[in-house]
Amino acid sequence: MKLNQHYQELQESYLFSDIAKKVADYQQKHPTADLIRLGIGDVTRPLVPNVVEAFEKAVKEQGTPEGFHGYGPEQGYDFLRKAVQDYYASFEVELPLEDIFISDGAKSDVGNILDLFAKDNRVLIPNPVYPVYLDTNLMDGREIVYLNANLENGFLPMPEQGEKADIIYLCSPNNPTGAVYTKKQLAQWVEYARKQDAVILFDAAYEAFVREAGLPRSIFEIEGAKECAIEFCSLSKTAGFTGTRCGYTVVPEELVREGVSLRKMWLRRQTTKFNGVSYPVQRAAAAVFTPEGMEQCRENLRVYQENAQCMAATLEELGIWFTGGKNSPYIWMKCPEGMTSWEFFDFLLEKAGIVGTPGSGFGSNGEGFFRLTAFNTKEKTQQAMERLKALLRKD
Amino acid sequence: MKLNQHYQELQESYLFSDIAKKVADYQQKHPTADLIRLGIGDVTRPLVPNVVEAFEKAVKEQGTPEGFHGYGPEQGYDFLRKAVQDYYASFEVELPLEDIFISDGAKSDVGNILDLFAKDNRVLIPNPVYPVYLDTNLMDGREIVYLNANLENGFLPMPEQGEKADIIYLCSPNNPTGAVYTKKQLAQWVEYARKQDAVILFDAAYEAFVREAGLPRSIFEIEGAKECAIEFCSLSKTAGFTGTRCGYTVVPEELVREGVSLRKMWLRRQTTKFNGVSYPVQRAAAAVFTPEGMEQCRENLRVYQENAQCMAATLEELGIWFTGGKNSPYIWMKCPEGMTSWEFFDFLLEKAGIVGTPGSGFGSNGEGFFRLTAFNTKEKTQQAMERLKALLRKD
Repeated sequence: MKLNQHYQELQESYLFSDIAKKVADYQQKHPTADLIRLGIGDVTRPLVPNVVEAFEKAVKEQGTPEGFHGYGPEQGYDFLRKAVQDYYASFEVELPLEDIFISDGAKSDVGNILDLFAKDNRVLIPNPVYPVYLDTNLMDGREIVYLNANLENGFLPMPEQGEKADIIYLCSPNNPTGAVYTKKQLAQWVEYARKQDAVILFDAAYEAFVREAGLPRSIFEIEGAKECAIEFCSLSKTAGFTGTRCGYTVVPEELVREGVSLRKMWLRRQTTKFNGVSYPVQRAAAAVFTPEGMEQCRENLRVYQENAQCMAATLEELGIWFTGGKNSPYIWMKCPEGMTSWEFFDFLLEKAGIVGTPGSGFGSNGEGFFRLTAFNTKEKTQQAMERLKALLRKD
Repeated sequence: MKLNQHYQELQESYLFSDIAKKVADYQQKHPTADLIRLGIGDVTRPLVPNVVEAFEKAVKEQGTPEGFHGYGPEQGYDFLRKAVQDYYASFEVELPLEDIFISDGAKSDVGNILDLFAKDNRVLIPNPVYPVYLDTNLMDGREIVYLNANLENGFLPMPEQGEKADIIYLCSPNNPTGAVYTKKQLAQWVEYARKQDAVILFDAAYEAFVREAGLPRSIFEIEGAKECAIEFCSLSKTAGFTGTRCGYTVVPEELVREGVSLRKMWLRRQTTKFNGVSYPVQRAAAAVFTPEGMEQCRENLRVYQENAQCMAATLEELGIWFTGGKNSPYIWMKCPEGMTSWEFFDFLLEKAGIVGTPGSGFGSNGEGFFRLTAFNTKEKTQQAMERLKALLRKD
């Protein structure tokens, strides 16, 4: 009996437990302190009424002989696939229904998609980045090359000609940096991937935060992307589904390697190792895409977007370099006065009672940077920014 | 870019599409025929009131700021893990909470557990069997050895001394045969596995159908099993969750190979590639394990069990060899008069308007056998058995 030895190569992440420990210590020392958490990576606003109503209705159906739904299609019910199809059409991406796979969230599919690829592929992963891309590839023992995201490229690394790649991870709007690729930049990635038969795994989990016209919400807005990309998306941030669990993955018919359809492989993977998403959850998800559901979800997003704008305006006023905030719930700021990520964490906690996330926790290139999130309330976010101004203003 | 070549080694299963085609042809020829389906592998009775109530309540919570649940623990909420723990205790299996992992169903976990094992392990798989065990290992390119289940061993294969194994699949009560291992038989498997450091993957999805006292419902009823087994279970058949999706997997603390805890590896796998089960679904699942929920679910199970008993009594009366039916929703019968599985399928459809499942679809050793399921209504099942008697009685 041999275990998968690659699990031993994984590093434990102590980022969030270290933060929790420091916060607990602080609270013990300052029991009356009014702490403001801008480190939250989870939404805080409840499901919208339209979604709750559809969800409840489907639960009731499950309790009646006529309405009961047993095993559903592993790739999702057509009513939801159709809703996703229409959603894509609203930003002019046309997809056949068969390209759309409903999942229990982007994290599962981002991990499981690797089943389709051999172990001896060369994987390009941005640094800093959402840790799942790295860990899932380490588990399989693949060769990993980092894409350097930094101040110079605005945390939007571009392909380096001559660098060989088989699998490429892109996340835009980015977690943790909030930076967003332009269409022109994505077109360069598509061209690069196609030249060497690489596959782009495109994480669009934050697409709903894109407000600026012209910025891409899907890699499939780029010509030729269907021949080289798989896209992952989620209702977690769009509609507050972090605890309700529903997402979708697009594997285009046009994506063929070694003469084999990746869509066909993914269908085989899902029908073999997955049994579909809960029927009531799929009904709830479909309600997100109705005109009423969309409007209600946008109202929630607006709160987070205004928080992000408030943070962005504060940093601009203070003359601090940052990315994100405009088309993303994340702000990625340079730590002031040459502080390291953890030094700034301690400084901000001690001097202003604000909790954020040290950038170094997302990869070595995150050192000297810091992530703030827009998921707290409007009042708390504004209050935190007032404290930040008082602390960092150079008069 | 290299694809996982092992996907090319998978065979497409046409079992259920071939059945559907034959049934459609029959219906076209006999538009007024009253077809009875005893091939259904899915439950038909709705969620019980207690479960619906808890499910609805949790959906309502998701719509309020106070009750909203975002990301939950990947391994499941403690309220549900505790309920599963108490359930195991009811048949005298004591488990620490940390051994219990909540999943979206046994199929996902049975597939995903293979992430923990190297590719060069020797895998023992019963024949005939639930196709997922075979396909998920073929996808990884592992060496597969079949365990012959047949008339001689009552479709309960036992270990052959001298046969080397690293991973062993057991399913009891069995799908498709309905056969159930005794404690003594499982103890032999545990002894065999421990001797050679193998790991048993035990599929207990049908445990709720075990009615005979003394028959094991969990492999952990066997001494020493915690050092060599992982158990998968599901609420699909227990509580009609096939479309609602919730299961649980037990990875005991005691299960260590090469000095590494498999429980720790599985936790790492799940926290990296999974984001937990929908909160309202977990609340619904917890309601299954309340005294009222259990009693209501047992009422549903009783209907299926009585159907199975009715089928078993009919086959006994007709003098046809079969397994299952007593502690399982499945009946696995020998085709009469030397017919092949498909010959009997056609015969039964043409002469009695009954649809079942050809045993050969579950593996070569299923040839000459036939599966009937207990998931239709009481009336339809009784009617089918009357037709079977009229057709096969030797007067």
